[in-house]
Amino acid sequence: MTIAYPKILSSSQVKPYLFQARFGLEREGHRVDSAGNLSLLNHPAALGPRRFHPYLQTDFSETQMEAITPVFDNPKQALQFMEALHDVMIRSLEQEELLWAQSMPPALPENESEIRLANLEKTKDVLYREGLAKKYGKRKQMVSGIHYNFEFGEDLLEAMWQQQETTDFKAFKSEIYMKLSRQYLRYMWLITYCLGASPRANTGFFTDQNEKIQEPVRSIRNSKFGYRNRPEIFVSYESLQQYYEDLQTYVKTGALSEMKEFYSAVRLRGGKRSEELLDVGIQYVEFRNFDLNPFVRVGMDEDTARFIHLFTLYLIYKEEEETPDAAQRLGYEINDAVALEDTLEKTAYYHEGKLFFDQMRIFAQNLDFAQADLALIDKFAQMLEKPETTIAGQMELAYRQNKAFALDLSRKYRQQSYKRPFQLAGFTHLELSTQNLLFDAIQKGLKVEVLDAQDQMVALSFKSHTEIVEKGNMTSKDSMVAYAIMENKVVTKKLLDRAHLKTPQGQEFSDLATAQAAFPLFEAAAIVVKPKSTNYGLGISIFKKPATQEQFHKALEIAFQEDKEVLVERFVSGTEYRFFVLDGETKAVLRRDAAHVIGDGVSTIKQLVAQKNENPLRGHDHRFPLEKIQITATEKLMLEVQCYTEQSIPAKDIKVNLRENSNVSTGGDSIDVTDEMPEIYKDIAEKAAEALQVKITGVDILIEDLNDSLGEKYSIIEANFNPAMLFHLYPLKGKGRRVTMDVLHFLFPEIFAQ
Amino acid sequence: MTIAYPKILSSSQVKPYLFQARFGLEREGHRVDSAGNLSLLNHPAALGPRRFHPYLQTDFSETQMEAITPVFDNPKQALQFMEALHDVMIRSLEQEELLWAQSMPPALPENESEIRLANLEKTKDVLYREGLAKKYGKRKQMVSGIHYNFEFGEDLLEAMWQQQETTDFKAFKSEIYMKLSRQYLRYMWLITYCLGASPRANTGFFTDQNEKIQEPVRSIRNSKFGYRNRPEIFVSYESLQQYYEDLQTYVKTGALSEMKEFYSAVRLRGGKRSEELLDVGIQYVEFRNFDLNPFVRVGMDEDTARFIHLFTLYLIYKEEEETPDAAQRLGYEINDAVALEDTLEKTAYYHEGKLFFDQMRIFAQNLDFAQADLALIDKFAQMLEKPETTIAGQMELAYRQNKAFALDLSRKYRQQSYKRPFQLAGFTHLELSTQNLLFDAIQKGLKVEVLDAQDQMVALSFKSHTEIVEKGNMTSKDSMVAYAIMENKVVTKKLLDRAHLKTPQGQEFSDLATAQAAFPLFEAAAIVVKPKSTNYGLGISIFKKPATQEQFHKALEIAFQEDKEVLVERFVSGTEYRFFVLDGETKAVLRRDAAHVIGDGVSTIKQLVAQKNENPLRGHDHRFPLEKIQITATEKLMLEVQCYTEQSIPAKDIKVNLRENSNVSTGGDSIDVTDEMPEIYKDIAEKAAEALQVKITGVDILIEDLNDSLGEKYSIIEANFNPAMLFHLYPLKGKGRRVTMDVLHFLFPEIFAQ
Repeated sequence: MTIAYPKILSSSQVKPYLFQARFGLEREGHRVDSAGNLSLLNHPAALGPRRFHPYLQTDFSETQMEAITPVFDNPKQALQFMEALHDVMIRSLEQEELLWAQSMPPALPENESEIRLANLEKTKDVLYREGLAKKYGKRKQMVSGIHYNFEFGEDLLEAMWQQQETTDFKAFKSEIYMKLSRQYLRYMWLITYCLGASPRANTGFFTDQNEKIQEPVRSIRNSKFGYRNRPEIFVSYESLQQYYEDLQTYVKTGALSEMKEFYSAVRLRGGKRSEELLDVGIQYVEFRNFDLNPFVRVGMDEDTARFIHLFTLYLIYKEEEETPDAAQRLGYEINDAVALEDTLEKTAYYHEGKLFFDQMRIFAQNLDFAQADLALIDKFAQMLEKPETTIAGQMELAYRQNKAFALDLSRKYRQQSYKRPFQLAGFTHLELSTQNLLFDAIQKGLKVEVLDAQDQMVALSFKSHTEIVEKGNMTSKDSMVAYAIMENKVVTKKLLDRAHLKTPQGQEFSDLATAQAAFPLFEAAAIVVKPKSTNYGLGISIFKKPATQEQFHKALEIAFQEDKEVLVERFVSGTEYRFFVLDGETKAVLRRDAAHVIGDGVSTIKQLVAQKNENPLRGHDHRFPLEKIQITATEKLMLEVQCYTEQSIPAKDIKVNLRENSNVSTGGDSIDVTDEMPEIYKDIAEKAAEALQVKITGVDILIEDLNDSLGEKYSIIEANFNPAMLFHLYPLKGKGRRVTMDVLHFLFPEIFAQ
Repeated sequence: MTIAYPKILSSSQVKPYLFQARFGLEREGHRVDSAGNLSLLNHPAALGPRRFHPYLQTDFSETQMEAITPVFDNPKQALQFMEALHDVMIRSLEQEELLWAQSMPPALPENESEIRLANLEKTKDVLYREGLAKKYGKRKQMVSGIHYNFEFGEDLLEAMWQQQETTDFKAFKSEIYMKLSRQYLRYMWLITYCLGASPRANTGFFTDQNEKIQEPVRSIRNSKFGYRNRPEIFVSYESLQQYYEDLQTYVKTGALSEMKEFYSAVRLRGGKRSEELLDVGIQYVEFRNFDLNPFVRVGMDEDTARFIHLFTLYLIYKEEEETPDAAQRLGYEINDAVALEDTLEKTAYYHEGKLFFDQMRIFAQNLDFAQADLALIDKFAQMLEKPETTIAGQMELAYRQNKAFALDLSRKYRQQSYKRPFQLAGFTHLELSTQNLLFDAIQKGLKVEVLDAQDQMVALSFKSHTEIVEKGNMTSKDSMVAYAIMENKVVTKKLLDRAHLKTPQGQEFSDLATAQAAFPLFEAAAIVVKPKSTNYGLGISIFKKPATQEQFHKALEIAFQEDKEVLVERFVSGTEYRFFVLDGETKAVLRRDAAHVIGDGVSTIKQLVAQKNENPLRGHDHRFPLEKIQITATEKLMLEVQCYTEQSIPAKDIKVNLRENSNVSTGGDSIDVTDEMPEIYKDIAEKAAEALQVKITGVDILIEDLNDSLGEKYSIIEANFNPAMLFHLYPLKGKGRRVTMDVLHFLFPEIFAQ
């Protein structure tokens, strides 16, 4: 088949879709102890069972974790997901464990039997690993790397297909991938040169004297000393048919135990089972020759991931050599030589490489690639000139400074994960509650997908069960009506009253005149005047002492500016608590203290605030569990009322309030009191949720005296849909409550039963 | 017990609560045929079973409907509910039936056996009626009236109670009601005088020659010829204990079959069963002596209902006579005399009446009653001067003009109900969809309550099962998440795509630059550029022919002004249909045609619009199923494009479009096409609802050709939560679909199984 690729790619029908593609990554890496030795511990118990975990598995040995991303429309998203998987893996490790940052395994035990195979449930999986161990030796299997799954976009393939008329779409598609694979094998040495990252082996890797090499090299993993099939295995890529037949023959003769034992740098992927490949045609390809870049936590950076995409486009454009099998053999020959070249020396294949990059650049210019992409090609081309800028080159330079640089990097990546344990790398553009929910979901082995980042909508799945969750805890279990009830203070109150739960006594008004005329009703009482629906404190007036008629009228005017309906309620004194109720059970209780500082007799209020703000849980714009205290006009006024300025030095243990309201968003403290809260009030919160027909809610209750065992002096202020979860997860004081996990448990009881 | 009532009522603690009270109404009235004879038909089948109907029952005979309101905080609301019950009753009658507008029954059959007792299920209820028929004769039982249930507010009672120290609260409460009752019986003649409304009997009421009276009188019903216990029955109101004992004695001796057979003008009400009265104390009283005012559809006007409330307050204030039983006998004596006085003559008790009203006015002034209330007292006082202004007086005057005035009024009330069948009287402050839902709910015997008028939240109940519904069809069956999904066009599209349903192809952009750069993708196609979340057409540009780059850029700018995310979609041609899907089933399908007129070769466009606007379904501000076409700048522009002005006279059968968009809210037509729509598209709408996990939704689908039996040329535009129901109920053309009833069926399958 002759496909006029150059013409095809530059046609105006194809060009709009040129960069349409799909990407997925798989990354292996070992668990090691704090000294950098293979961990003796089992696969982390915190992770859901390997039997169904879609993202976190073990590869050959029990220590070799495998992180698998879903498929995305651009490589950046795949890398971001890989970052998330790293946060989850690292934070699921036992206290002292690390994730080993490079491809070559750490020092291996003298006795090969001490390398534990992955402790999997299925006999088939165990037998397969035992077979490999026998055939290739365990040590080779311990080398890790990244697999890059790549698929051309469907619109792109269709547009290309429509430019030629010779064949059906399925055949066309397979042929494109066959060409890509042949070319990739021919030029993979460029990847080995630029991205090779296994220059030196640790103790215990080479045990055969014949295998001794001159280190540093570019890539042991991509050399003949890497994890390879025996040399007599040769599979032709001339056609899909030929590829398939060759593989089948090896399987039949027993040279390969099954098709997946064929370790080419490019694996062709069709259906779920290798055997379906011929029927369904090639759906995508798996590039398997990437070493872990130890300078990047997840082993591959965004530039590299993008470059590989550009590389594939150029490969399908570039003219092929005429004899595919010979070209493949040549490709391997060059690759194997380059892999064992001295890390810091120029390559012997410099000229072929330079020609390749020059032509690739012209191709890119002709197709109007963006400047950033051209610069990326230049960056990789430059590596030919400067071997020290290749990954292996950089590693060798680092090694000369510090032989333990890889272990140090592994430690650094662990610390990174723990620096802001309330965030999930790769998803930091989402709200923290959603980040935490996704963390837990990934940890427990649910499939996750962000449906809409703006609205914080995510889909979580286990087998055929999918739940869509909005903003961390708005789920399919709560109704539109529960939402409407909680939004409406009057209806909330009516329903709570009917359930014989106490709410602030009061009355609702829908016009100013009637409300003002009702003054006699409230003349003698402490009251709160508030708009019916506003939630952020706007338009609320509190009179702890009875209001004058004038004050009452004014307060009503203010409230009516915010809403058409206004409530006047008796003011209830006491401390306000937030009860997080889920499916009829109080999962967490929190007290919020208004922003304040405690004097030490030495520091000014300004200094005390600064000290308090140093807490790593405090930050800005809801990107942290707590907000930093800011001294604005409101705080200054509050100080003034107490006869302070920012420069005042309060005496030791004197509490200085900076705010009237206790919201965490204005610098308030969060204190978990779940264990101290008497059951009687938890019952009340649960009954409130029941009365409002809501499964997940935050109930605010004013309690006059926690020790009142009758539980009678309380008042339910409101119930909130989409209650904040973060301050329960990471309170300033007290025990964190993993309410995000409770949400998952509620939605997917079946995975917790596993 | 001596309670210093005057002091109590005027105390500053009591005054704020003075008007706090609760009200409920019961109204009897006969079904008659179009000639005004008792209907021969059964109780309307359209109404839910009498076994559980909370509002619509039958009293003594099968034709005597009884409408019972719930209890409200003011009499106006009770009357409004009674209006609603009237709309429901009247629209549930067989085609020619009427509701008889006055207390005295229409002509009764010569043979008493032709008066059918209410056809009730419970043997006990039937036996009770048979007993009454035997004891009092059927004819007397056919007289109808209104019962006014009255309860003082709990805060009022408590405030009053706290002003005195002699007794416990329950006893105090009962004593207040006992005084009210004694005083009421003493002065009820004033009610008979002012509000008596049974001056003449129709044929067949008086069959005993001894009972012949000189008509017109004030109130046959309230005279000794009304429905009374035998004269020897006398029950003392001196104390609750005495009242109860007297009644028990009559029951024991068999003079009364049970306590409820005692027909006083005031009945004391305690618990559910009469027997509990002594234990629970008096909870409220039932005033039973109101004739139906035929000049008011529901039989009592708001002034009257309010006056009765003022009357009760004055009665508990007013000094009592010292001998309660004697006072009661005197009260009845005067009442019975007044009842049979000549309608148009002054009463013999004028002076007692005048004194009463004078003192009542002083009382009202002293307690700072509003001007309107003082005027109301004056209005009733005036009736003493002008007997022709009493209800009976007005009836007599009307009778002299037209002997059939009551029948004519009955006809008028029926017409009133049918004039705007899409509204529900008493609830016209709500949206039409909620009005229709409430109509259906009341008809089928659900308890209804408006929880919040502003948010259109209503509670519907059957036994212990309560459903809260917002805006007509947002229910507990749909989740917060379904709501969020439908609000988000991108997520909607993703989920529909995954369910293999067709949506307009397109792409989402979150910044202007990227979107503008994507021009090549859309260069050759008809497209729609729209903001992600807006629903009202704001910021949408449609290019039926491919846009130029400049137009494309401009359209994106406009869309980005409305939302942070913008969609560019392929434009799909065809006709748009709205599918109302409920619980997986398409209940109605509608086509909406843009506002237009069809020429007749004679009228100008302006005249044609005016003619079209005469349709009674068209109105303004969503208070009607369709909106009137308005000729604004938009319509003028649309005419201009077609080379018309408002004064143009289009040729016969020529269609002139006035709008591009087909929204009903801008004058569009609604055409029901449920029966014509091929099943294949209903399936598609149902699958869409399933994919979006929604139970009640309006799916908009563009269909290119309804006759395409493959059902392949369609595109789902969007799915709407809270879909409009009114245009399905009352389409301009085609059959109305009672989707509000479908909603009820979905929420309360149990009542439809009855």
